[in-house]
Amino acid sequence: MNDTKPTSRDPGPARPDVVIEAVEPLVDCGRFPAKAVVGDTFVVTADVFCHGHSPVRALLRHRRAGSRNWSESPMDSLGNDVFTGVLVPTVAGPLEVEVAAEIDELARWLRDAQALLGAGSSDQLDIDRCSQLVAEAAGSLARGQGAEAAQAARGLHEIAEKMRAAPSALVSAELALAGTDLWGAALFRRPINDGATAAKYRFRVVAASQRAAFSTWYELFPRSASPEERRPGTLADVTDRLAYVAELGFDVLYLPPIHPIGVTARKGRDNTSPAGPLDVGSPWAIGHAGGGHEEVAAELGTLGDFARLVTEASARGIDVAMDLAFQCSPDHPWVTEHPDWFRHRSDGTIECAENPPKRYEDIYPLDFQTRDRDGLWRALHHVTKTWADRGIRIFRVDNPHTKPFAFWEWLIAETKREYPDTVFLSEAFTRPKVMHRLAKVGFDQSYTYFTWRYAKAELTEYFEELTGSPGRAYFRPNVWPNTPDILAVSLQHGGRASFIARLVLAGGLCANYGIYGPVFELMWDKPVVEGSEEYLHSEKYEVHHHDLDDPKSLRDVIARLNLARRSHRALQRDGDLAFLEVDNDQIIAWCKQDKSSSDVVIGVVNLDPHWVQSGFVALDLTALGLGAGSSVPLRDILSDTSYVWQAGRNYVRLDPAVIPAHLLVLERP
Amino acid sequence: MNDTKPTSRDPGPARPDVVIEAVEPLVDCGRFPAKAVVGDTFVVTADVFCHGHSPVRALLRHRRAGSRNWSESPMDSLGNDVFTGVLVPTVAGPLEVEVAAEIDELARWLRDAQALLGAGSSDQLDIDRCSQLVAEAAGSLARGQGAEAAQAARGLHEIAEKMRAAPSALVSAELALAGTDLWGAALFRRPINDGATAAKYRFRVVAASQRAAFSTWYELFPRSASPEERRPGTLADVTDRLAYVAELGFDVLYLPPIHPIGVTARKGRDNTSPAGPLDVGSPWAIGHAGGGHEEVAAELGTLGDFARLVTEASARGIDVAMDLAFQCSPDHPWVTEHPDWFRHRSDGTIECAENPPKRYEDIYPLDFQTRDRDGLWRALHHVTKTWADRGIRIFRVDNPHTKPFAFWEWLIAETKREYPDTVFLSEAFTRPKVMHRLAKVGFDQSYTYFTWRYAKAELTEYFEELTGSPGRAYFRPNVWPNTPDILAVSLQHGGRASFIARLVLAGGLCANYGIYGPVFELMWDKPVVEGSEEYLHSEKYEVHHHDLDDPKSLRDVIARLNLARRSHRALQRDGDLAFLEVDNDQIIAWCKQDKSSSDVVIGVVNLDPHWVQSGFVALDLTALGLGAGSSVPLRDILSDTSYVWQAGRNYVRLDPAVIPAHLLVLERP
Repeated sequence: MNDTKPTSRDPGPARPDVVIEAVEPLVDCGRFPAKAVVGDTFVVTADVFCHGHSPVRALLRHRRAGSRNWSESPMDSLGNDVFTGVLVPTVAGPLEVEVAAEIDELARWLRDAQALLGAGSSDQLDIDRCSQLVAEAAGSLARGQGAEAAQAARGLHEIAEKMRAAPSALVSAELALAGTDLWGAALFRRPINDGATAAKYRFRVVAASQRAAFSTWYELFPRSASPEERRPGTLADVTDRLAYVAELGFDVLYLPPIHPIGVTARKGRDNTSPAGPLDVGSPWAIGHAGGGHEEVAAELGTLGDFARLVTEASARGIDVAMDLAFQCSPDHPWVTEHPDWFRHRSDGTIECAENPPKRYEDIYPLDFQTRDRDGLWRALHHVTKTWADRGIRIFRVDNPHTKPFAFWEWLIAETKREYPDTVFLSEAFTRPKVMHRLAKVGFDQSYTYFTWRYAKAELTEYFEELTGSPGRAYFRPNVWPNTPDILAVSLQHGGRASFIARLVLAGGLCANYGIYGPVFELMWDKPVVEGSEEYLHSEKYEVHHHDLDDPKSLRDVIARLNLARRSHRALQRDGDLAFLEVDNDQIIAWCKQDKSSSDVVIGVVNLDPHWVQSGFVALDLTALGLGAGSSVPLRDILSDTSYVWQAGRNYVRLDPAVIPAHLLVLERP
Repeated sequence: MNDTKPTSRDPGPARPDVVIEAVEPLVDCGRFPAKAVVGDTFVVTADVFCHGHSPVRALLRHRRAGSRNWSESPMDSLGNDVFTGVLVPTVAGPLEVEVAAEIDELARWLRDAQALLGAGSSDQLDIDRCSQLVAEAAGSLARGQGAEAAQAARGLHEIAEKMRAAPSALVSAELALAGTDLWGAALFRRPINDGATAAKYRFRVVAASQRAAFSTWYELFPRSASPEERRPGTLADVTDRLAYVAELGFDVLYLPPIHPIGVTARKGRDNTSPAGPLDVGSPWAIGHAGGGHEEVAAELGTLGDFARLVTEASARGIDVAMDLAFQCSPDHPWVTEHPDWFRHRSDGTIECAENPPKRYEDIYPLDFQTRDRDGLWRALHHVTKTWADRGIRIFRVDNPHTKPFAFWEWLIAETKREYPDTVFLSEAFTRPKVMHRLAKVGFDQSYTYFTWRYAKAELTEYFEELTGSPGRAYFRPNVWPNTPDILAVSLQHGGRASFIARLVLAGGLCANYGIYGPVFELMWDKPVVEGSEEYLHSEKYEVHHHDLDDPKSLRDVIARLNLARRSHRALQRDGDLAFLEVDNDQIIAWCKQDKSSSDVVIGVVNLDPHWVQSGFVALDLTALGLGAGSSVPLRDILSDTSYVWQAGRNYVRLDPAVIPAHLLVLERP
């Protein structure tokens, strides 16, 4: 043959023969970390294989970012070259996760040996190779952790010795097969050599606190929290209201901005201009001579009042959530101290917020790409850090979609570096890709389109997308029937039945939900003008007094729903949701499960607030993990009534004049 | 407010506000290049957006790898923040492709201006800002290519000047709106500034020759190509057979290995051992004293005969495809020259190929991770290069799945560096992930499971996967009804009808297909033992003589099918395939389209080789682009008969005793 002339380029360094691909969950090919929850099982899958027919083995490793030591566990083969493994984060914060894999030469030898022994061809066994592989496995085990590994290592070393001394290849092979069988569990877990033959795929995961995955929010305006009709509320009044919030079963109390409010271009009642002398202004027009984002408005109290509120809330298991609205009133100290933090028109004036032809003269947006980007971004981080230093671990971020993604990615990472258990909720009601990007860059929870999804088909499609799409790896929905900005049309004409229906949909479908109260439980339903989603006499612009003891209040049904949420793990996560077939488009039914605790909750809601609706709900007891029996006893936690449902079709009849929903849990004997 | 103490880390360098994500097609997140074809439109989509509400614009750029100059064209918005663009590679080889995007500040200003003018608020227009943006756009255009861009640049500069001189903001704004409207097409195409504000996403694409996308293969054993019964065939006989191959309409003639065949442990007829003195051996047991992979076996002829074959084939539009079987007989020169290129057992002997308990003593596999990896890999590249130097542009690679992926990635890239129009076909019948990985690392075409997909449901599912799954970005199927290794069960008991059915399925469903002949057209259907897929008297181990003029030969139907493939663009690509509903599970029907040429082909096959089958084929003329009429004239190119099909249901009746298939094309008036 010809000489092989060196016309080819160097093949480069040897690479592992094993391939790791299709690793899940990855967010944008690993550009962003996937999201885990402290204490929750986090499942990783990957395709792991090699050319030819050699068996491979794979381990899943993880460690806190910056740590040196890996925790590792074997991954199981699911067939078709797919492997799966799990990890459980123990603290909040970033993790490094790695799939490591190699050819299992020992398993290959043993598989081939069994075939040769079965064919009576023990003469073809390469026993020296086997004892070398057994000794190598023993060496790997000796580097592993735990007494079991050390014991297995010693056992395997003995086997390798005996094999070398055995009288025949047949005996040696039988020793190897019996010994590796004996130490199989340890062998399955043995470390993977860190040499060039091992393949590795590393990616990032961030573990959030449990609160990020399961939270029940109550929003109120502190200045409307006074028990006395003549006096505006204060933070002290909010502290007094904690008992009520706790009775209703909420664990997050979210306050709109509590900072000094600007006076220049202040808005009056129902968003009119100019404001009158008694108008209190919008809490989102932040800053005046009294201070900016790090101060408490004098009319609400002091930092001491704030600290008391946070402490007493905490004692009741309630986290106080703050609003981060990164914008300024024209009176904000930054406007004079840092005029370069704002955008200017050609005539030198500062640009106010606008959505042409509308202008919002009471708000100056910040210029996040200002030349003093460093100064502005650090100042905004300082705001967040200051409130975190004061005990706040949940931030609801106002309109994050109007600020750069890179800013949020930096701010959230920077905040979590010091306070990894912080939860950021993205208040972005905008295009889907923008909302998803915000979730990717670090927001723990996201407002959703739930508020505008009314019909059965659109609710079904939307929740199937939320719980099933690739977005599940990073997008945690938080659904709200109403907010101070949105009196949903579904609430405007349906009365009590529509409020209860929307409540049970929110809290029964989604692990994170919230209401804006007491407006919700007192069923405010008047828009500022017909066809608008703005509340008439919106609390954004004026102070109200609420009669919490109004007998029409929904506080009882809210408390029942929230108690069920606290008691039922199935309602605390979003993964396992299935809609049930009902032969009536006005009735929606679903089932949420938690497989680890065998918990099951079934929701049924009549979407028609005006008429009785009835139909049959299809139930597959086996598929729902409800046992092999032909029926199952259920209790409706909304009405405290009991039912027995059958495998197959179950009749439901929901009267909006009574209660338009069932929330059914397994009857405990 | 408090000082902002420098507790935060530096936000880092400014990043573009525009996001580019979800770029398609990417293979394994860009780890491998996506595949394009010279002359074919290559479509790129991406999500491109910014925070807030600013309009963005995106360009698609591409250039040959290593080139300095980009070709660029605007991407169109599809809504929902999705943009799409196309490129058409002009030569085979690697491309760099880039999506570049930026905020379109000018479009934003114009949009806002229109809103303000509509509301009669021209006093709020920032005209200086606009004339600055117009001047910037003119500057971008001046950097662009072509006379149109230069003219638009001049026009915009004039407008900017006029705006500054205009008597009122209203007049200036109207000048801007009219002028940008006038130059809209050029503005849409203007270059994107290469500064820090532009977002870019770069990825790799490799363009293959047209042959990679559309090929019709004929495989034959040269030693069986003799026209005389008593004399084994030679390369000269193959040259004489080119007229026949061309008459049948094939454009790739694939030869099993033509190298010297080993004698040690040679296999006899029907794979028996030991071989008799007259046995010719398997062509895949490569190498003996006469040479190895770069030589032609003396019994087949000389390198001169080979060169003549390649030249005369080329004159007929036929490419000769070589077999790359990277393994050695025990007599291969490398066994003595490079014993370290083979794997050794503990006793020092060379490992033969084995699948325990079976051993293949006539084959030594190569050790691709040998210490002399560099020497071995370069030698194998030298083999490939040598045949490429001799004019070969298509390689069918034997069992690539038993060699490392990294080797193929290197070998194919290295070969294509010099010969970018080379086509590599992967002969890997193995697990799906392994077959896909081979396609990702660079194989242009891949054998498939078609050979074992018989029933309508499994054919439908498989071809929907092949043409619709993410694999479409890199996996080009090449389907074969038979190969020398596989006498498919579907051919063993169905006679002529089953051969025609499988032929029309292969060539009518897939742009790349092949048959192993003359065994196929002469309908060999006897397995070596009942239940086996090995041919009786397999040509792998012995010489045959074929009577090409046998009146039973399928050469006429093959020629008709292949002529249709050459004439109909719809049959030359795999993208646009739809199965048609038929109310009979024994009848499968499909439609292939090429939208660019409005070409449509409909295939209908009776899968039952024994009985007449009839049924109704559902046809949606509008969906298939067959016009708005109520009927369409079709011609069956297999039987030269004409039909008129209706929108709706069309009766078909296929008699296996006559011909079990229709291949329908639009009747040309």
